[in-house]
Amino acid sequence: MHTPPVAELSARIKKFQDKMAAQDIAGALILQNTDLYYFTGCIWPAYLYIPTEGDPVFLNRHRGEIKVPWTWPVVKLDKSNKLAGILQEFGLPVSGSIGLELDVLPVLVYQRLQAALPGRNFVDVGRLIRQVRAVKSPWEIDVMRSYAEKDLFFWSQVPEIISKVNTDLEVAAALKACARKQGQQELIRMRSFNLESDSNCVAAGESGAVISSYDVPISGIGLSSSFPMGAAGMELKPGQPVSIDIGSCYSAYVLDQTRMFAINYLPGQAWHAFETALAIQQEMKSLAQPGVSCGELFERARLMAKKAELIEGFMGAVGGVPFLGHGVGLEVDELPVLARGSKEVLEEGMVIAIEPKFALSGIGAIGIENCFLVTKHGLEKITVSPDDLLVINK
Amino acid sequence: MHTPPVAELSARIKKFQDKMAAQDIAGALILQNTDLYYFTGCIWPAYLYIPTEGDPVFLNRHRGEIKVPWTWPVVKLDKSNKLAGILQEFGLPVSGSIGLELDVLPVLVYQRLQAALPGRNFVDVGRLIRQVRAVKSPWEIDVMRSYAEKDLFFWSQVPEIISKVNTDLEVAAALKACARKQGQQELIRMRSFNLESDSNCVAAGESGAVISSYDVPISGIGLSSSFPMGAAGMELKPGQPVSIDIGSCYSAYVLDQTRMFAINYLPGQAWHAFETALAIQQEMKSLAQPGVSCGELFERARLMAKKAELIEGFMGAVGGVPFLGHGVGLEVDELPVLARGSKEVLEEGMVIAIEPKFALSGIGAIGIENCFLVTKHGLEKITVSPDDLLVINK
Repeated sequence: MHTPPVAELSARIKKFQDKMAAQDIAGALILQNTDLYYFTGCIWPAYLYIPTEGDPVFLNRHRGEIKVPWTWPVVKLDKSNKLAGILQEFGLPVSGSIGLELDVLPVLVYQRLQAALPGRNFVDVGRLIRQVRAVKSPWEIDVMRSYAEKDLFFWSQVPEIISKVNTDLEVAAALKACARKQGQQELIRMRSFNLESDSNCVAAGESGAVISSYDVPISGIGLSSSFPMGAAGMELKPGQPVSIDIGSCYSAYVLDQTRMFAINYLPGQAWHAFETALAIQQEMKSLAQPGVSCGELFERARLMAKKAELIEGFMGAVGGVPFLGHGVGLEVDELPVLARGSKEVLEEGMVIAIEPKFALSGIGAIGIENCFLVTKHGLEKITVSPDDLLVINK
Repeated sequence: MHTPPVAELSARIKKFQDKMAAQDIAGALILQNTDLYYFTGCIWPAYLYIPTEGDPVFLNRHRGEIKVPWTWPVVKLDKSNKLAGILQEFGLPVSGSIGLELDVLPVLVYQRLQAALPGRNFVDVGRLIRQVRAVKSPWEIDVMRSYAEKDLFFWSQVPEIISKVNTDLEVAAALKACARKQGQQELIRMRSFNLESDSNCVAAGESGAVISSYDVPISGIGLSSSFPMGAAGMELKPGQPVSIDIGSCYSAYVLDQTRMFAINYLPGQAWHAFETALAIQQEMKSLAQPGVSCGELFERARLMAKKAELIEGFMGAVGGVPFLGHGVGLEVDELPVLARGSKEVLEEGMVIAIEPKFALSGIGAIGIENCFLVTKHGLEKITVSPDDLLVINK
């Protein structure tokens, strides 16, 4: 099911090698599951050594053998301290900087690698890998588009679910079952330290206007203080907005979407906020193209929120988060980040989730979120389910 | 819902302070969500500085204010480089070792802290915290027991679910909906780098006998190579065992249980393996008590598997994992680990999941898993749903 072809893996490695060469790094040792999957198509206990030139070496850390689709060498590595010897055996440079994913590697793992490769200089390649991953290949874009088609059915189920149940938690439960039955995988991967996720985040009524404990605009409040995210077990009431933020992942790639529903009716201010969110989305579609900076997009959205007199809850309660969107792919928190002040520029092939949202005090969360592909002519919407806010009569 | 009382939090901090004092550590800076929740009862972007003596200081890293139940100082920390000044302001030692959770902190975060507190020596307290957390308080034990009661209803639903559906994935989807409706939180926390989890891991037939890509005995194979765990979307067939491994978490604390089901009938070898798993569980109940080493328990189980001529698939395919169980609590991979050769000893108040399991080639996974409290008189079963392997006629 959508296993990356070998040519795709080789092209990814080549892109990364070119970036390493430009920074005078001799090679990199890849440990984290998502990055390993990106370069090898496998989830397996292993290290992947990618030299700046030539084939990588797959160091199998598991007790079992692995069947692989590619022809790079596979070597058993039962103890970290055999690492230096193995790299030497493959004629790989014994000096020069080694790249590691320092943004995700725990310190104790890092210290073990330092001991195994004494005298080597280690540098972070977490950001380099994320930059490579941010620009999707035609194969990846096709996969993501095919998921968006599947998501059409998923989203089409929501109105009936909401009409039949009484609480936000029942909505979340039914959506989860629907997602799994349709083949969505249970796990949504994230990279940031301490970031946690409910892959179907239902925020009904005022729970949507509470400041999130996480670095996200709207998260709901969850069932208890131990995980303050998602459905809260509260009754759905007339006049409430229900924001549903779904990370859907049919295999490997995540699509991030938010759709709005209302129970019976909505106050005028909520409609105004929704129209503003759609207008911001439309404005981003006109502005965004390769070369445009992320900070410029955030600033434009912020100005539109201000002009609409919605600055107070823009991107969440109490000042909001300082970003309007983010890359999506194998992880839900990829580059680029459409962040305040960011000079990072859009590149052709990036896939970004844009999520203009408002926390309306006393009402709840209002917003929209879709995934877009950056093409040379501007943004193309990847997620295809209709943007409309649906009023559900109960 | 089961928010830890302030006296409980203070007692936890005192236990940790005593352990730090014994190791001559001046204080610790806590960053990871689970540890922060353990000591504060909150999930919030913050650092908690715990000195070896006296009250901790809560350093709020969020844009918002936080309402807290305790009286320790709360200070805003917008930039890491203000850290040294704040600690000084509170009269906290400016020299001596500072403990950090080096087992989970990413290197880049660690390097920022090193820069913010120049000249300080940093040591790992991840293990100390895990040791403190391994021994549960009477309050925690009561909470875990109350979850086990709720789980009775959850498990009672499984036979009907299996009888009604056609695939392992439909079982997983229905179980997930049932869990959420009953108030189980979406997130199950884990500590180990690269460990990933499907909170309801359904392994039907031969998918249960495949070597896991993760450090667990049985994981199923999942829907694709991007997450090789849990249901695989395969049809349930007569003669198949169905192993269901659930991490249930009604708020904060996780219970880990595995129950077995069979479609119509099971081959004799599967029944033999199930009886052996139960016998190992029974043997652990007789042997385990405070002072007994984890390695001794593993070894005894291994010998029983050998005697039963089941050593080949003991604790998973291809030699199995080298452990029989693990602590559970706020995380599913807590201390102690009932690992081969481990000299770690059981202590009163520990809660451990014991999971004798077999990967039977050509048949599937067979086993049992329950959570036990270590009391001075031996093990007490916390999870109360019946152990029986249920045959479901379809």
